[in-house]
Amino acid sequence: MKKSLQKIIKFRKDRDWKQFHSPKNLAISLVLEAGEILELFQWSKDNELPKDKRKKLDEEMADVYYFLLLLANDMGIDLNKVLEEKMKLNEKNYPANKVKGSSKKYTEYK
Amino acid sequence: MKKSLQKIIKFRKDRDWKQFHSPKNLAISLVLEAGEILELFQWSKDNELPKDKRKKLDEEMADVYYFLLLLANDMGIDLNKVLEEKMKLNEKNYPANKVKGSSKKYTEYK
Amino acid sequence: MKKSLQKIIKFRKDRDWKQFHSPKNLAISLVLEAGEILELFQWSKDNELPKDKRKKLDEEMADVYYFLLLLANDMGIDLNKVLEEKMKLNEKNYPANKVKGSSKKYTEYK
Amino acid sequence: MKKSLQKIIKFRKDRDWKQFHSPKNLAISLVLEAGEILELFQWSKDNELPKDKRKKLDEEMADVYYFLLLLANDMGIDLNKVLEEKMKLNEKNYPANKVKGSSKKYTEYK
Repeated sequence: MKKSLQKIIKFRKDRDWKQFHSPKNLAISLVLEAGEILELFQWSKDNELPKDKRKKLDEEMADVYYFLLLLANDMGIDLNKVLEEKMKLNEKNYPANKVKGSSKKYTEYK
Repeated sequence: MKKSLQKIIKFRKDRDWKQFHSPKNLAISLVLEAGEILELFQWSKDNELPKDKRKKLDEEMADVYYFLLLLANDMGIDLNKVLEEKMKLNEKNYPANKVKGSSKKYTEYK
Repeated sequence: MKKSLQKIIKFRKDRDWKQFHSPKNLAISLVLEAGEILELFQWSKDNELPKDKRKKLDEEMADVYYFLLLLANDMGIDLNKVLEEKMKLNEKNYPANKVKGSSKKYTEYK
Repeated sequence: MKKSLQKIIKFRKDRDWKQFHSPKNLAISLVLEAGEILELFQWSKDNELPKDKRKKLDEEMADVYYFLLLLANDMGIDLNKVLEEKMKLNEKNYPANKVKGSSKKYTEYK
């Protein structure tokens, strides 16, 4: 992950693109790239990925990861650390013995 | 990153939530969580994060990372590997000497 | 529709909020509000709206319509007119005799 | 507006596409089309629409309007009526004399 980040930071620096990467613009790009993943599933009837979209999914996942890493870097966020903290909160808000297998509780999850 | 993934897979298993996690639903969640990041910047005038949203950003970044890891896991995708491949493509499509500092070229970037 | 527009323009003017409504910010709001509609369907298993979300859907639909009308107004766009033009294009790109009932063709629809 | 709706309902019927239009899928399409509007502003520095995107904006606005009308129709929602009701709520939640010109209050607006 650290190696991936170094690579994309160098990529950006070589192109002098940081000037376009305000946190707000990176957040916009993150939404748009996530949308491109969702688009692959748009008319799927069985909620699975159509087979002919598999290669495209790899690329779109990479794009979301790319912008997530950049935004995290620019905002000084350690993704694994914030996830660890969030999971503690999730453990508390969603006690396994109370929400297990419950779609009702689950629909409240944001 | 591997440790983070193990933790969230266990979290999901303990709650028997995989049944709700079709790839399509995970893609929807990814878009919605990315939207919650963007919402923090919604009325920002200077394209920066309002100071009082810093803590919230950590949580929303964690949520996007959470769904990205789950979707990658369920689809058998190695994020660092697909990023590496995508960056090769980006290097090819965006040669530094041609697009450097150019917002015009950059606007074609998807 | 014209009456609705007049009402929201007055609402905005009374609050002096136009200063926050750059076209870009309105486009962001449109995405976020559309996301709030989608959120109501997030974990729906049968692709229908959960019954307890019906009232909320009215509100979120109103929010999307609100930002769509504002953005159209500010950009000088007549929604019914651009839709009419787009439908001509759609008629051409999707001839009924070729795409009828075809999900395959339909998946190419953007 | 009624005429626009009649036209797109006929368009859909002629193609037998209603089978793909579950409310959930229409909500997904609405988000994705709103995203295509936002994409036109993605790297805009002055928060305005780049001039060469004007024609494209007409088309994307039409697409959002198309899916908004379809979803409203299928869910039995009168857009002008729900907007009127929502505006009453907005008038109550955002009294002009309290929030006028205030970006601070405005950032709480969802």
